[in-house]
Amino acid sequence: MKTQVAIIGAGPSGLLLGQLLARSGIDNVILERRSGEYVLGRIRAGVLEQGTVDLLREAGVSENMDAHGLPHDGFDIAFDGRRVRIDLKGLTGGKHVTVYGQTEVTRDLMNAREAIGATTYYEATDAQPHALESDAPYVTFTFEGEEHRLDCDYVAGCDGFHGVSRGCIPAERVRTFEREYPIGWLGVMADTPPVAEELIYANHERGFAMCSMRSPTRSRYYIQVPDTESPDNWSDDAFWAELKRRLPTDAADALVTGDSIDKSVAPLRSFVAEPMQHGRMLLLGDAAHIVPPTGAKGLNLAISDVHTAYRLFDKIYHENRTDLIERYSQTCLKRVWKTERFSWWMTSTLHKFSEDDDFNARIQRAELDYYTRSTAGLTTIAENYVGLPFETLET
Amino acid sequence: MKTQVAIIGAGPSGLLLGQLLARSGIDNVILERRSGEYVLGRIRAGVLEQGTVDLLREAGVSENMDAHGLPHDGFDIAFDGRRVRIDLKGLTGGKHVTVYGQTEVTRDLMNAREAIGATTYYEATDAQPHALESDAPYVTFTFEGEEHRLDCDYVAGCDGFHGVSRGCIPAERVRTFEREYPIGWLGVMADTPPVAEELIYANHERGFAMCSMRSPTRSRYYIQVPDTESPDNWSDDAFWAELKRRLPTDAADALVTGDSIDKSVAPLRSFVAEPMQHGRMLLLGDAAHIVPPTGAKGLNLAISDVHTAYRLFDKIYHENRTDLIERYSQTCLKRVWKTERFSWWMTSTLHKFSEDDDFNARIQRAELDYYTRSTAGLTTIAENYVGLPFETLET
Repeated sequence: MKTQVAIIGAGPSGLLLGQLLARSGIDNVILERRSGEYVLGRIRAGVLEQGTVDLLREAGVSENMDAHGLPHDGFDIAFDGRRVRIDLKGLTGGKHVTVYGQTEVTRDLMNAREAIGATTYYEATDAQPHALESDAPYVTFTFEGEEHRLDCDYVAGCDGFHGVSRGCIPAERVRTFEREYPIGWLGVMADTPPVAEELIYANHERGFAMCSMRSPTRSRYYIQVPDTESPDNWSDDAFWAELKRRLPTDAADALVTGDSIDKSVAPLRSFVAEPMQHGRMLLLGDAAHIVPPTGAKGLNLAISDVHTAYRLFDKIYHENRTDLIERYSQTCLKRVWKTERFSWWMTSTLHKFSEDDDFNARIQRAELDYYTRSTAGLTTIAENYVGLPFETLET
Repeated sequence: MKTQVAIIGAGPSGLLLGQLLARSGIDNVILERRSGEYVLGRIRAGVLEQGTVDLLREAGVSENMDAHGLPHDGFDIAFDGRRVRIDLKGLTGGKHVTVYGQTEVTRDLMNAREAIGATTYYEATDAQPHALESDAPYVTFTFEGEEHRLDCDYVAGCDGFHGVSRGCIPAERVRTFEREYPIGWLGVMADTPPVAEELIYANHERGFAMCSMRSPTRSRYYIQVPDTESPDNWSDDAFWAELKRRLPTDAADALVTGDSIDKSVAPLRSFVAEPMQHGRMLLLGDAAHIVPPTGAKGLNLAISDVHTAYRLFDKIYHENRTDLIERYSQTCLKRVWKTERFSWWMTSTLHKFSEDDDFNARIQRAELDYYTRSTAGLTTIAENYVGLPFETLET
């Protein structure tokens, strides 16, 4: 079989890229190792930048998001007995973020893809790109017990951190940059009304805590735990008790608890692979980079790669600018590193890293104190949180 | 003998406090372990914040500074092949810094003190405060071979990091916060015209470098070295060669070299002791806190302590507000920690800390890239560099 762009991975970046390409008349096939149900079962972040929302609209998959997404004009940072609102709208000249779960984004994209009849192979295992440095790459995979070959012009690696794509770049041509944090986030989802209308990020001497949500009736809460912690060690009661200890008093008093419908520990890691292109393969999203969850940048950063890849394929197929593929990596990496920086800063500033490092604890407090009292400081937080502009592919 | 305020240490903070008190009719005596010549021989920073300049004017010791100080409306940060000017004036609504050496400030203050006939004991050794928790503290010291006793109402500890004052706070009442950086600054002073009209801070893969000055004919340059380095290992030629390697090409080409008139290695350290008051003793400047030199905050931070102490003594002696002494420490520490934060940030962002930490090197580049392209980011640098406002002593 044959297509123009072979997309590996049916997460939101693969699906959105496929949708944008299809609408632009560029044929594509998606190969996904898991079932659609499994993909939808993955619980991820839920805060969308304006640029992400705009690109979903451009792809024509915004109906549900526009109906059910919650625009948030601000969020709170709690520390040292203070609770400070970051006025996103006021500080950025009117921008905001939209709370709408990654699961919902994925479902909308799946439905849209089905509606246009584009091809997706779910449970397609052993996908392997070949001949990426030639003019005729192809991807082999196993589907329903048989091996298939998908010939294509380009391969888009949207298959996440553990996917096969990144490994296709010869080791001597790739540099990786990594920081592991010795902490994890214990997350609980519950069908309870969120404690506040906006999100709360709390720096507390017992460790970080966060109040998020998916809808007016579904809450998502997190507390910092050691990265070796098992969610099985935490009863619902123990989780709620610890969360309350770390929240500002007014928030703790307002918290409505309930049975958890999900409880899991996520690691915190920063990772970047350079370059993000090899021959006729592009890497997008987690396949090329990971951010710690503080600041909710993972999905948004993946979508900004989709933006660049889509613009690139548009130029390649409609203006024959095959030369531009060389610029994909450097265009993406500019924004990747700015976003890695912000996620690292939010992580470094809000978590507790050591029982012993008193100097660091004071510096954290001074950082939060300075950044939340200076208009310039507040603006740096706000403009990063709503999302820096997409980088333009230089043509 | 007897006075109202016994000041230990005749560096710029002790001298300025003495001058302000004397003008306000508050009697004071300064005890200095070293000779006046020795004090003047210490080479220190040379960038004064607006608040420092204003307080020197208030003390009536600004004639030379006003005549010879160089107003600087900006400075440069060089990194990753770029050289970016931080437009202090434009970003802060008209503020600037003044380049005028600490040695000159000290000399002006010494001359002013001599002119008003206030008492200073130079080469007064073994100074030791006593009875600080009583209403009648006193300081004993040795002068010209004889032991003396100076009765006083209050003691001002302006005797630096290695002075006796901080140690007078019982160990169980003091908390210290410290960060040592495994690097030093090798500094060279030379009677050559400065390479540029403004200062240059350079982040380079070989390590930090900096171009500063004391006057239009006297330059001060620094390069990062290991903290174990001896200045004896560096010939003038070797220093200039390494400095050139780390500067932007245009600066390296413009550099005028010459014989060094001073060559020394300074360590980089962050340190804070809390509280900064014990009974009837106050700590000022390096006696309570050290900042690494990046950003030139050491002298300025000491002067902001002088500002708070002066306002306090004014209230005590002219409004009988003896209760206010309890507020000295918390008032000072607010600004101390903001300044520690900025000095730590400038240090962390501009130096090379490890051969191996590629992630950190990329984050540094991303920090500099973000902060120098965002107006909000530039403003955070500028407003800290010109000096945050003095904190007000709440009365």
